[in-house]
Amino acid sequence: MRIVDAVVTPIAFPDPPLLNSAGVHEPWALRTIVELSCGDGLIGLGETYGDAPHLELVRKAAVALAGADPFDLTAIRRTVTVAVAGQDAADRHGLTGLPDTVAKVFAPFEVACLDLQARSIGRPVYALLGGRCRDSVAFSAYLFYKWAGHPSAPPDAFGPALDPDGIVAQARMLVDRYGFRSIKLKGGVFEPGAEVEAIQALRTAFPEHPLRLDPNCAWSVATSHSVAASTAGLLEYLEDPTPGIEGMAEVAREAAMPLATNMCVVRFADIRPAFTQGAVGVVLADHHYWGGLRASADLARICDTWGVGVSMHSNSHLGISLAAMVQLGAALPNLTYAADTHTPWQDGLDVVTAPLPIVDGAVAVPDGPGLGVELDRDTLARLHENYLRCGVRVRDDTAYMRTFDPAFRKLRPRW
Amino acid sequence: MRIVDAVVTPIAFPDPPLLNSAGVHEPWALRTIVELSCGDGLIGLGETYGDAPHLELVRKAAVALAGADPFDLTAIRRTVTVAVAGQDAADRHGLTGLPDTVAKVFAPFEVACLDLQARSIGRPVYALLGGRCRDSVAFSAYLFYKWAGHPSAPPDAFGPALDPDGIVAQARMLVDRYGFRSIKLKGGVFEPGAEVEAIQALRTAFPEHPLRLDPNCAWSVATSHSVAASTAGLLEYLEDPTPGIEGMAEVAREAAMPLATNMCVVRFADIRPAFTQGAVGVVLADHHYWGGLRASADLARICDTWGVGVSMHSNSHLGISLAAMVQLGAALPNLTYAADTHTPWQDGLDVVTAPLPIVDGAVAVPDGPGLGVELDRDTLARLHENYLRCGVRVRDDTAYMRTFDPAFRKLRPRW
Ligand SMILES: [Mg+2]
Ligand SMILES: [Mg+2]
Repeated sequence: MRIVDAVVTPIAFPDPPLLNSAGVHEPWALRTIVELSCGDGLIGLGETYGDAPHLELVRKAAVALAGADPFDLTAIRRTVTVAVAGQDAADRHGLTGLPDTVAKVFAPFEVACLDLQARSIGRPVYALLGGRCRDSVAFSAYLFYKWAGHPSAPPDAFGPALDPDGIVAQARMLVDRYGFRSIKLKGGVFEPGAEVEAIQALRTAFPEHPLRLDPNCAWSVATSHSVAASTAGLLEYLEDPTPGIEGMAEVAREAAMPLATNMCVVRFADIRPAFTQGAVGVVLADHHYWGGLRASADLARICDTWGVGVSMHSNSHLGISLAAMVQLGAALPNLTYAADTHTPWQDGLDVVTAPLPIVDGAVAVPDGPGLGVELDRDTLARLHENYLRCGVRVRDDTAYMRTFDPAFRKLRPRW
Repeated sequence: MRIVDAVVTPIAFPDPPLLNSAGVHEPWALRTIVELSCGDGLIGLGETYGDAPHLELVRKAAVALAGADPFDLTAIRRTVTVAVAGQDAADRHGLTGLPDTVAKVFAPFEVACLDLQARSIGRPVYALLGGRCRDSVAFSAYLFYKWAGHPSAPPDAFGPALDPDGIVAQARMLVDRYGFRSIKLKGGVFEPGAEVEAIQALRTAFPEHPLRLDPNCAWSVATSHSVAASTAGLLEYLEDPTPGIEGMAEVAREAAMPLATNMCVVRFADIRPAFTQGAVGVVLADHHYWGGLRASADLARICDTWGVGVSMHSNSHLGISLAAMVQLGAALPNLTYAADTHTPWQDGLDVVTAPLPIVDGAVAVPDGPGLGVELDRDTLARLHENYLRCGVRVRDDTAYMRTFDPAFRKLRPRW
């Protein structure tokens, strides 16, 4: 069993104007779809970032992988390491320019190889990760402040959310549609008091739902202390209030709730300093930058060993990534929190033929071979056409925001 | 693919009178061989301790596993957990009474399931652990102070080793036969000065071989400080000089060489306190009590994340355990030291048809399906006969020593 073909397809799909501390989502979100073929009809799927510098490295790695054994992930990682050596996939939003370039480029190939392995033996991917610990993987309603629509386009189907009432209405819509049992608000957009009010409004409207707030490092340590104090008893965790391990550790010393992160612990080298300083109580795993599903499972085991909780991070993604998250979540004994997903914001659009549905706030773990999803080639072609036409090559929420507000700057912290 | 039969066979084989801080090896060493059959000709092999309380739990677990899917290790671990719940496999030597009974009982089944999985897909076990990082796994010459033979029997083939000259001669014999490129001395037998002299004699005789000394917690912190000072520059690591994480941490603060352990870090719960206190620089992994090959790989990943080295621990064992160690060692990116093995002390006796040979101090990683070894059923039957006849049911080095020296006590520390 050898890889005879590695197809790398950049795609673009419509994305609503979701606000965050870096700016606002552009009208097109980018992803890259990886298909590994062994020439026997078996195809393994992976999904990763679509930013041009990253895409270029993924393409180089794909070329280098011809002839590789999909069961030999060590050799495949070595090949990827050589293919990307000395090259950086810097970007303008801090998503694909994360320190561990190899892990990030390797990840979609690792997922595709596990998909191939699992398909070749007629087993779900979770069987290769040690087996299934749960029958479904819970996700949270991922709320965003947002405009009514992109300024250049008519209002989108989701409507605006720029104050507590708008956020509660958005939560209601997502909970009604998907049955989510926990709620996360992406903050760092308005001054902290306004976001605390939104959390209070959510608590009133959803008395039983665990709540989270994630300002993406928009706050100073002092502001974080003050927000933590005013949301004590309201939040199951406070995510990345402030930049850096030291700052997080300072906030953690006083905060009543655990601090979560997908920003200060993003590679194995971050774990020791962060855990030693008690900077975080929850790590959001993300196989896209931790180096695949196995590495993410390793991360979860380390968290378990240190008494640190595990959740899952998400960027705008489609159904291959969701399926990979579900397979991973199925296999993690200590997935202690509902995972994040942007899935609702893609409003049903997907690159797989039968996207895994979110029902009662969770995705039932598929028992079929591999990841449990198949590529929809017509849609893939259409989304690739989008990519060719849309003009976006690197996600840049800040630059897009500055087209409307030239004075806007990405400040971490801002308050 | 379902487990239709789980056969558990206790065996005994001759063991030389190897000395350690707890006493001396009895004439018979015990092991338990586990065979999992799926009724399609495929059999998966595991090997574990043979002590009666442990054997009883392994038997209970085996009965409970009928019908289990060998790919569903999560369910198998759960079944083992239920089967052994509330039961302790306490022993008299601290080898099978380790805190994590579930891990210890689960381990041979995990190995046998991985063997089954790998055989069923025609791959070596390392492919299921992420792939092969090396072509061979290095082992160290494991020296023991020993008597010429068991007092009730004629001298054995290895001869006595009770002083520096005897130890050097033993090392020469093992290095000549197996090509070992590193040397470990099991200490804790004589007063520390005598053992330091043996190390100095080894350094003179083998100027290039990395050396280790392991007194199994026979020393106080003060004695450990003094031995560490007098062996500075001589040892690649000093193993378990003193009992407990706190004591090890105290020694580590002054010692020039890293401290290694298979006694104060023996389960995941030990890692955080030991690493936080800087108690150890090397952990000896042992799949027999860490809960199998996957858990041992997790341990190695945690060590890597903390900048802690990895070696491998051994008790008296046969070729299934050796094969499992080699498959694990093949898959660990950070097996930073040659592993321990008692293999030479079994002098060619084995329960597998073609034991993996140690050549130039290393075992070439087998590329065949599964663990790479097959059960020798005639020998298994013969060793089981030994078990039935020999009368030993629990390893007890201390009691055996007291039959010759009634005043002997297991003291940790002794000096
Ligand atoms: Mg976040
Ligand atoms: Mg030891």
